[in-house]
Amino acid sequence: MINPEAYALGSCRSEIRELYECGLRMKAELGAENVFDYSIGNPTTDPPEEFTSAALRILRDTPPAELHGYTSAPGCAELRAALSDYINRRYGEETVPGNFYVTVGASAALTVAIGAVCTTGEEVVVIAPFFPEYRVFIENAGGRVVVAPTREPEFQPDIEALAAAISPRCAAVIINSPNNPSGAVYTEESLRALTSLLRRKSYEYGKTIYLISDEPYRELVYDGATVPYVPSLYDDTIVCYSYSKSLSLPGERIGYVMVSPRTRGCDAICDAVAGAARRAGYVCAPSFMQKVLTETLGIYSDISVYDENRRVLLEALTSYGYTVTPPHGAFYLFVKSPEPDAHAFSERAKKHGLLLVPSDSFGVPGYVRLAYCKRTEEVLRSLPKFRELMESYK
Amino acid sequence: MINPEAYALGSCRSEIRELYECGLRMKAELGAENVFDYSIGNPTTDPPEEFTSAALRILRDTPPAELHGYTSAPGCAELRAALSDYINRRYGEETVPGNFYVTVGASAALTVAIGAVCTTGEEVVVIAPFFPEYRVFIENAGGRVVVAPTREPEFQPDIEALAAAISPRCAAVIINSPNNPSGAVYTEESLRALTSLLRRKSYEYGKTIYLISDEPYRELVYDGATVPYVPSLYDDTIVCYSYSKSLSLPGERIGYVMVSPRTRGCDAICDAVAGAARRAGYVCAPSFMQKVLTETLGIYSDISVYDENRRVLLEALTSYGYTVTPPHGAFYLFVKSPEPDAHAFSERAKKHGLLLVPSDSFGVPGYVRLAYCKRTEEVLRSLPKFRELMESYK
Repeated sequence: MINPEAYALGSCRSEIRELYECGLRMKAELGAENVFDYSIGNPTTDPPEEFTSAALRILRDTPPAELHGYTSAPGCAELRAALSDYINRRYGEETVPGNFYVTVGASAALTVAIGAVCTTGEEVVVIAPFFPEYRVFIENAGGRVVVAPTREPEFQPDIEALAAAISPRCAAVIINSPNNPSGAVYTEESLRALTSLLRRKSYEYGKTIYLISDEPYRELVYDGATVPYVPSLYDDTIVCYSYSKSLSLPGERIGYVMVSPRTRGCDAICDAVAGAARRAGYVCAPSFMQKVLTETLGIYSDISVYDENRRVLLEALTSYGYTVTPPHGAFYLFVKSPEPDAHAFSERAKKHGLLLVPSDSFGVPGYVRLAYCKRTEEVLRSLPKFRELMESYK
Repeated sequence: MINPEAYALGSCRSEIRELYECGLRMKAELGAENVFDYSIGNPTTDPPEEFTSAALRILRDTPPAELHGYTSAPGCAELRAALSDYINRRYGEETVPGNFYVTVGASAALTVAIGAVCTTGEEVVVIAPFFPEYRVFIENAGGRVVVAPTREPEFQPDIEALAAAISPRCAAVIINSPNNPSGAVYTEESLRALTSLLRRKSYEYGKTIYLISDEPYRELVYDGATVPYVPSLYDDTIVCYSYSKSLSLPGERIGYVMVSPRTRGCDAICDAVAGAARRAGYVCAPSFMQKVLTETLGIYSDISVYDENRRVLLEALTSYGYTVTPPHGAFYLFVKSPEPDAHAFSERAKKHGLLLVPSDSFGVPGYVRLAYCKRTEEVLRSLPKFRELMESYK
């Protein structure tokens, strides 16, 4: 009488959400100043001033019925044209507006991209560690998740392991660089090896294996790291993007799917993206945000606070005896658990007021993820807790 | 290599969207003033001033990172509390905030409500004429659409036909009153007969048959018509609501699912709603709109212009010889085609610059739908075209 899969998904929250809720209870009990919630990736950096002033101006000056009306399903013409122009200028690319489908955030983008190229019974390969909701989106499309491990501690793709994971039933491989949760930025060398492999496997199996590049952290890199432009390395690429992190707008749900203009059957895939969106009840991305974005493309939030937090945590945690690979992107630190069981470590951390997500649901055991998109003052106050926590193991 | 169902859905647009695009081409060719587009239900009435001033105030006064941050998946606590309070006051109801799941518009609400209670192989009964996308949402949930006819020309539910349509595989019945496309408002008498039947069938089959009440036009009624409160008539009711029409915000995608507090297994259904949303990649409804809505609940757009258009069209079209049942709600007029084939009539209407949607995809042959959510001046200018069109049949 109730859909069992929907009930299972809804009654058992993601581990990250569980920990976040636990943090709210702990704050109520112990006082907010004694709990350090590193669980959720909710940006604390404001959107840039240009964004808010454009939003105010558009809200004041546009006839409301026009401002809030339906846009066409793939997005308003002005935004798609601006996106195409922006990507073409930034990457020397040759997209047209038809390559873009504006979505209700990155999760919607992934849902419709996977829904467009995956058919019931096919496989989608994810590279661990990976965002746990990939599993939900792939299974929703009728696909089966195949996990390929990475090389620790850099978390760059392991090409041999990937080759073993790609079977003739493989519809697509998802990559996410800068990576949630490891903070790794895949190097051009890694991506060249990965895309060579995809070409070889596509040829071997006589089919197109799509590369879905999930890039919500594209603008969040440090230490001068660069994020290679994936569609220039592989023709059959579908990019999923979101402004949640780069403009600090996670609640507004706006992003896009870009089907590379060189993808075989590009127009048909764009149609399938539209169909997958229609099937899931997406009508259009929020119209007001589409209009604001049209006027602010290429402007991003100031991420210097994340960089500062990253340096502070990296230095302090290493000095306390933690093992951490320096992350070059996103706003996560992936810290080796001092004991093999990351759940036990996460439980012990709670006793010190620290909320750290165990890595198991990301497909890698033995680590915890810290989302350091916080105020630096709070990060600094949490350092003694990390020291105590490590000392408790000695 | 491409998902065939997604491709089929994306490459073949809905008939309404096709006609809308055809209208854009005609306007470019013939001049916008010579084309009267009655195809799409995009409101022309502004949202109320209170809405826009609240939006400006909230945008100016709220710390941006907070304003645009993630809300919890079912909606921010303040909005859900306000919704519960509003419905309790308006209908003498006893909901709690947990009965509400805020959604990215009505299509998302329907997707997750159907996804929560329908399991692969089950049936969902729709009452013709019905919104064509119901078919897409039901099939996405693995369900099968069963169409029950209504009694013409009033388009009230036909209880005998409905009884025949409800098999032991029936998971839910969807009603939509005020109705798109007929404008019918189901009377309390009709609803009492319908809900008695559902109770009888649930008992007979030993299962709960859910009533999904799709109510985006709830506030749009004329001639003093009232819309009965469906959950007071049937315990196992799930209401899907949207602010697209009542606040003229169709592009902003905000609405909700309300699971009646008297539904058997209410908490489990709320969980399944959350799971169906998670599965489809919905993370939360747009956060800024959630905050504005929290402060403007119970304020609606002024619909006097729709009422005026309705009167004007009804009187004129009847005087030209068209057969129209006076609609008491929504902003659609359902007009009998002067020839049996409504497609042929719609094609002939195009030659007179009139864009009218043939009724076949709504599950009823022989009518056209007019969306009269337009400026009255434009409606008045279109009247001679309707007269010419009818005269062409004489």
